[in-house]
Amino acid sequence: MSIASTPPPPYYAVIFSSLRTEGDNEAYGQMAQRMVELAKQQPGYLGHESVRDGLGITVSYWKDLPSIKAWKQVTDHLEAQRLGREKWYKQFKTRICLVERDYGMEH
Amino acid sequence: MSIASTPPPPYYAVIFSSLRTEGDNEAYGQMAQRMVELAKQQPGYLGHESVRDGLGITVSYWKDLPSIKAWKQVTDHLEAQRLGREKWYKQFKTRICLVERDYGMEH
Repeated sequence: MSIASTPPPPYYAVIFSSLRTEGDNEAYGQMAQRMVELAKQQPGYLGHESVRDGLGITVSYWKDLPSIKAWKQVTDHLEAQRLGREKWYKQFKTRICLVERDYGMEH
Repeated sequence: MSIASTPPPPYYAVIFSSLRTEGDNEAYGQMAQRMVELAKQQPGYLGHESVRDGLGITVSYWKDLPSIKAWKQVTDHLEAQRLGREKWYKQFKTRICLVERDYGMEH
């Protein structure tokens, strides 16, 4: 996993923080992978970063709010969201954010 | 690590994504822990979430932009930032974000 290469702000970030339920790791992993592939095909997708070690943090980056709303309504994604609520997550929080400024460093 | 309990939006998020250099794990871990303790004491601090598995993502939540700017200038934090640039990070990106909306679930 690498740091997403995003255009100059403003753009949007969706911070998805989650705690998994026990088990079902294979089905979950497959769905997570499918959702990444599907997200990459959406208009306005700019990149994503994802890490889990107990707590999971996935940040996806988007051009604007309409892109985020459209992605939320993609049929296969709706199904993944339903399974997430019903089976896979003990707790989650989604935060929709306007990225106003960014800076970084690369050696 | 748990999901940060934050007040209703609007508030700010600082997404810090990083890739570590090799080694020096003990000194780095101690400094990271000290910075968490110090951040918690700052005015406007609302919470944080942090995960590393190769890529590291730390999100800290703040009341407003002045709180973020003040935290960036705290003396011990300036020293940590210097060491981060010089020794500890191969690459990092910091994104300053206005959280406009959030929602979640808890079973």
